[in-house]
Amino acid sequence: MDASKGKGDIVTQNPGGQMDRPYSFLESMLPKAVKRRVHALKRLQVQCANIEAKFYEEVHELERKYADMYQPIFEKRQDIVTGAVEPTDEESEWHSDREEEEELAEGLKEKAAIEDAKKEEATPGEDPKGIPEFWLTIFKRVDMLSDMLQEHDEPILKHLKDIQVRFSGPGQPMSFTLEFHFEPNGYFNNAVLTKVYKMKSEPDASDPFSFEGPEIIDCEGCQIDWHKGKDVTMKTIKKKQKHKGRGTVRTVTKQVPNDSFFNFFNPFKASQDGEMDEDSEFTLATDFEIGHFFRERIVPRAVLYFTGEALEDDESFEEEELEEGDEEEQDEEGDDDDDDDGDCDPKA
Amino acid sequence: MDASKGKGDIVTQNPGGQMDRPYSFLESMLPKAVKRRVHALKRLQVQCANIEAKFYEEVHELERKYADMYQPIFEKRQDIVTGAVEPTDEESEWHSDREEEEELAEGLKEKAAIEDAKKEEATPGEDPKGIPEFWLTIFKRVDMLSDMLQEHDEPILKHLKDIQVRFSGPGQPMSFTLEFHFEPNGYFNNAVLTKVYKMKSEPDASDPFSFEGPEIIDCEGCQIDWHKGKDVTMKTIKKKQKHKGRGTVRTVTKQVPNDSFFNFFNPFKASQDGEMDEDSEFTLATDFEIGHFFRERIVPRAVLYFTGEALEDDESFEEEELEEGDEEEQDEEGDDDDDDDGDCDPKA
Repeated sequence: MDASKGKGDIVTQNPGGQMDRPYSFLESMLPKAVKRRVHALKRLQVQCANIEAKFYEEVHELERKYADMYQPIFEKRQDIVTGAVEPTDEESEWHSDREEEEELAEGLKEKAAIEDAKKEEATPGEDPKGIPEFWLTIFKRVDMLSDMLQEHDEPILKHLKDIQVRFSGPGQPMSFTLEFHFEPNGYFNNAVLTKVYKMKSEPDASDPFSFEGPEIIDCEGCQIDWHKGKDVTMKTIKKKQKHKGRGTVRTVTKQVPNDSFFNFFNPFKASQDGEMDEDSEFTLATDFEIGHFFRERIVPRAVLYFTGEALEDDESFEEEELEEGDEEEQDEEGDDDDDDDGDCDPKA
Repeated sequence: MDASKGKGDIVTQNPGGQMDRPYSFLESMLPKAVKRRVHALKRLQVQCANIEAKFYEEVHELERKYADMYQPIFEKRQDIVTGAVEPTDEESEWHSDREEEEELAEGLKEKAAIEDAKKEEATPGEDPKGIPEFWLTIFKRVDMLSDMLQEHDEPILKHLKDIQVRFSGPGQPMSFTLEFHFEPNGYFNNAVLTKVYKMKSEPDASDPFSFEGPEIIDCEGCQIDWHKGKDVTMKTIKKKQKHKGRGTVRTVTKQVPNDSFFNFFNPFKASQDGEMDEDSEFTLATDFEIGHFFRERIVPRAVLYFTGEALEDDESFEEEELEEGDEEEQDEEGDDDDDDDGDCDPKA
């Protein structure tokens, strides 16, 4: 069940989709005196919800405080990813290095060294800067992101240097901003693309018991200053038009929206739309999930999505749950070892 | 996806079931210089995990602070449930009262008053103390609890006055204790039955990336001082024994374990068992889930489980998810109104 991380944020409540106050059958059948007492408990429960809202505000403060502590580490990460800084030997020692060396210990070391040398020869001058396509690789490996990714987005995302999360300041309305930092590129002028997620952390007066912590209630993208002809969120289609009277045919070109990850930045504000249709509600709910996922998973542990380790973790989790279910029926199946062979599709 | 509440706690990690460090295929194919940089990022990631552990410790502190704020409300709840205190009219005013009155406004009020009077007549002297069977009703309505509940447990649980959560003090190892407070009863002498859940909030040195916040690692029940012949966790069976030589048959009685909710307090410590078999691991994982559920859901919002509102909430959630999936395929199905007719089986 409750295996998600969640620092107190939930996001998937259908935005705008308000549930009717549920009618309790049991409650209506209680003797009057008891019903009265139950109502008193409900009033106490509303007090609890209000205290809980304050709790989540304090958690948010804590998150801001910790964001400052993570910041220098994330900056270092960016420097290594972009190649601005080369880590020292000590900084890049990892136990698998030692394991490899041990494996190679028995006389094979020399052979390996020769092969390494060969490799270097085969790809002369291959000393790539930093970690090439670091963020693009993550986009490709994570289902929720690859679903949005189009082929024409890929060359652009090669220029993505970093993704950062900024929290709203103290006293400000609760929100967080995703910042996508790009190196200079041939596609747009912006150095940073932003998406702001606004949150609410107070019980709804009309439905206080549905309160479960801060909720994303709105988002706002940014204008992308595309170079001429480079806007992948639009495509040009040709259309033939026939003149009614003369019968002559002419070809006109028309700009229509195009699928692209960069539609994520469309300056779409939920709150301005008033009544939303179900389609928009669904789109918005998905968008909130993606924003939450960037904030909670991708940004804090990017390297693990790059290597695939975070994906395998998620996968093993689901497998474990299945195994537990199985165990009830088919006892004593023996130890199953966890070797998922790098299948990168945990959310399927 | 991430719709669970979770104040930073997760519980379902298979206790003892350690996953192999996942092998990253991509990582092994990277050029040596790049691999080195990825390893540097992994070292930074370990630093992040250690900072995260401190974050969760601070969240735990916050929870302790807020527990003190909830305490007077929960005490009031207990007083109302047991009948020690009768709420005032103001304290028990609830909007559904007003709605009922409005509905009854048109001349029907009188008739209703007569019927109410009749009801009182039909059940003379029925002025129950407090809210009878408050906690037992919750046990019956919540699947995770009713699964453990046996018929012979019910008369005992009618004496359950309150369930409380106590957090470990500052500086102590992280833990929480569930306290089940009973009124004097004919079954056991204990006024309080306890179950302690010990937690760990630090990354495992051998697998730092699996860290997702505090985890329950152990639990400890308590000895129940049963009155003679009242221990529902044991049953007496009769067994016929045949004497090998003489062939005479005698009947012996034997005490064997019996299904009961009160096995929840069996002084079972995970840590003492050393190597656990899969069965015990599964039992323990389920127990951790139940402990977590008491702490996170039942205790903080008991009245909503009593009336069923919390169950309907959970249910609507799942339905919403299904609807979202459906919408993709069969657009424009029209508004579906949320009327779940009190079906109490949200976890099915």
